[in-house]
Amino acid sequence: MGRFSRGDLRLSRIESFSDSVFAIVVTILVLELTVPVLRDRGSPLELWGRLLQELPKFLSWLISFIIVCKFWLNHNWVLGLANRANYGLAWLNSIFLMTQAFIPFPTAVMGEYATNPLAVSLFGVVMATTTLLFIALQLYIEKNLLKPELAGTLDPHGIQKGLVGSLGYLVGAAAAWYRVEGAFLVYLLTPLFFIVPSQGDQPKRVRK
Amino acid sequence: MGRFSRGDLRLSRIESFSDSVFAIVVTILVLELTVPVLRDRGSPLELWGRLLQELPKFLSWLISFIIVCKFWLNHNWVLGLANRANYGLAWLNSIFLMTQAFIPFPTAVMGEYATNPLAVSLFGVVMATTTLLFIALQLYIEKNLLKPELAGTLDPHGIQKGLVGSLGYLVGAAAAWYRVEGAFLVYLLTPLFFIVPSQGDQPKRVRK
Amino acid sequence: MGRFSRGDLRLSRIESFSDSVFAIVVTILVLELTVPVLRDRGSPLELWGRLLQELPKFLSWLISFIIVCKFWLNHNWVLGLANRANYGLAWLNSIFLMTQAFIPFPTAVMGEYATNPLAVSLFGVVMATTTLLFIALQLYIEKNLLKPELAGTLDPHGIQKGLVGSLGYLVGAAAAWYRVEGAFLVYLLTPLFFIVPSQGDQPKRVRK
Amino acid sequence: MGRFSRGDLRLSRIESFSDSVFAIVVTILVLELTVPVLRDRGSPLELWGRLLQELPKFLSWLISFIIVCKFWLNHNWVLGLANRANYGLAWLNSIFLMTQAFIPFPTAVMGEYATNPLAVSLFGVVMATTTLLFIALQLYIEKNLLKPELAGTLDPHGIQKGLVGSLGYLVGAAAAWYRVEGAFLVYLLTPLFFIVPSQGDQPKRVRK
Repeated sequence: MGRFSRGDLRLSRIESFSDSVFAIVVTILVLELTVPVLRDRGSPLELWGRLLQELPKFLSWLISFIIVCKFWLNHNWVLGLANRANYGLAWLNSIFLMTQAFIPFPTAVMGEYATNPLAVSLFGVVMATTTLLFIALQLYIEKNLLKPELAGTLDPHGIQKGLVGSLGYLVGAAAAWYRVEGAFLVYLLTPLFFIVPSQGDQPKRVRK
Repeated sequence: MGRFSRGDLRLSRIESFSDSVFAIVVTILVLELTVPVLRDRGSPLELWGRLLQELPKFLSWLISFIIVCKFWLNHNWVLGLANRANYGLAWLNSIFLMTQAFIPFPTAVMGEYATNPLAVSLFGVVMATTTLLFIALQLYIEKNLLKPELAGTLDPHGIQKGLVGSLGYLVGAAAAWYRVEGAFLVYLLTPLFFIVPSQGDQPKRVRK
Repeated sequence: MGRFSRGDLRLSRIESFSDSVFAIVVTILVLELTVPVLRDRGSPLELWGRLLQELPKFLSWLISFIIVCKFWLNHNWVLGLANRANYGLAWLNSIFLMTQAFIPFPTAVMGEYATNPLAVSLFGVVMATTTLLFIALQLYIEKNLLKPELAGTLDPHGIQKGLVGSLGYLVGAAAAWYRVEGAFLVYLLTPLFFIVPSQGDQPKRVRK
Repeated sequence: MGRFSRGDLRLSRIESFSDSVFAIVVTILVLELTVPVLRDRGSPLELWGRLLQELPKFLSWLISFIIVCKFWLNHNWVLGLANRANYGLAWLNSIFLMTQAFIPFPTAVMGEYATNPLAVSLFGVVMATTTLLFIALQLYIEKNLLKPELAGTLDPHGIQKGLVGSLGYLVGAAAAWYRVEGAFLVYLLTPLFFIVPSQGDQPKRVRK
């Protein structure tokens, strides 16, 4: 009994730590959007031109923002499956958060070198990696820490859906070597596709 | 019953995530205030002159700080209307937060190019956009997630007031093309005007 | 009764928002500590020399860190006096936090131009301002929102002690025009002196 | 009784403030990973080469991330030993957090000058210092604020294990003057070794 409540407290601190990391990542993404350097400081036309040139940076920022928010939502959901926390969860979670905290770097690289296949590809590889680590976290919780009342209610296709998401990012990473525009499109669509599964899972959990 | 308490928990995590984003936005705004470069490092006069030149940056910082704090307060109030959270709220909230997290960029651009109509105008357009997204969030909550005990107590003019705020920023954005000083003034006054309505709403809610 | 609990909830969100701002301020202070540029990248001697040159930056960082932690502690204590929150408290708190969030700028200016009287003086003026705003927040809470059970238990000299702290920073700001080392010393000692009063207040509150 | 519950509230705010600092530190570490400057913006080969050159930066980032996560976990555990907070704990904690918030600087210096013995050594000295401050925090809590029900259940070797960790970082700092690769290895292994002790402590606490 005491073990249970302590486990819950610890879980709430892991949640709050993770929430902070997610919040900081999405917010410092904006620091990569650099103020353009103008020759004629008062010229709206020149500023407009420079902002258009930064379009890939805005797009990278937008994609990363949506992806991290999606992970945040799914992370909420997955930690909600656990009835307590242990060091295994804490460390798997930390390694997953490490890849989330890394996201501003590939985002900045892709935004700066949007025509460079390696730059655009790197983004997809990082996203696939963080998705796989998220799946590992989910599997660990479902196998070791699942709330007893949720046993049998989990979507048996949940993990496959995560793997499809991971595959989506890898397809984008491969596409970058043919057409970077294609990669951007895949990166943008993958999290949108990813939104549906969790909504499907949710009612089941609530119904129980 | 269980559904309700879970809904509350989720709502509290959305609140804490949002609070973190607001807090980070207002705090990293200061990173745009760059240390001036001096030729004579020990000269108070030169430093004073450089700081005066950065006045538009300080003003942009001040305006954004007040606006984001205002949004934070209104956001508190609006989420307080909901009796639970769903994915619709979570995503509308994320998109709204995306525009809030974007604010440091137009703030930095306006601070750097305070005489450039486009730079000053961009700030107002972003603020109008984030205000409209906030209204969308408010409407969504009032129509789908409103606490039953609050039905009928909401200020029927609440949304219009939000639209006036949004219009205020657009007026500022337009004014920038005639006189940038006018735009700065409108940007500064709009959130101040905005403070009153919520205070008006508040007692009604509390009384109920 | 319902009003009271809602007031507490709101207060807890103001506390958590403020905590986040304090935490971000103390942590991003480190971003002003720039990696020195070396000619001979492998030379320990050159790196050592450059780090010694950055000593004023380290000192500014240290002083600001201690001051903001002190404000965080006192802020905890002052919000603990309130039995609920209103918009007056929320806005006074926001304006106070604005000056706290501003601190990295004068810290960076002082660290960069440690021999410039204006740079060192500016730091003291900002600290005196934020202290005065803190006193305003304290007075507002004591006059309007004080927990009934705390009436009569407050140290009647509490505000004067705050004013002494504010005066300390102004003395440092003045000293900067004669000897910058003196100013640094005063800035370092003022928060240390400031630690004692609150400890003195604390038992009284707890005893009640 | 009232004193106890207030003490707990205060403790929860120290925890949440600390959590925020840890979360910000691990996340802003990524800001040191700078986007490489390319001559041929579209060349994957040149980008690949530049990324390989930044390998020490990635490694420094990785090591610091793991170390700070480890401290966060141990910090959770240590504050869990306290039944209330006092100003002694608050200040010891603040000074410890100061060294944690400092970590991005030695990390950036080591990442930039990975072949410079002083740069690599500095990292170890900072880590040893923050570990010693953590031990001081632990000792203070165990001697003054320990939950009565935990008396006699603490691992008598707990502090020694912390000292071994501290020693590990100093060995790395010394190794840097012979072979920087050796230092990197020691820095990477020390927190990994450090993971076990706390896991050993944990069951005892839970069992009780």
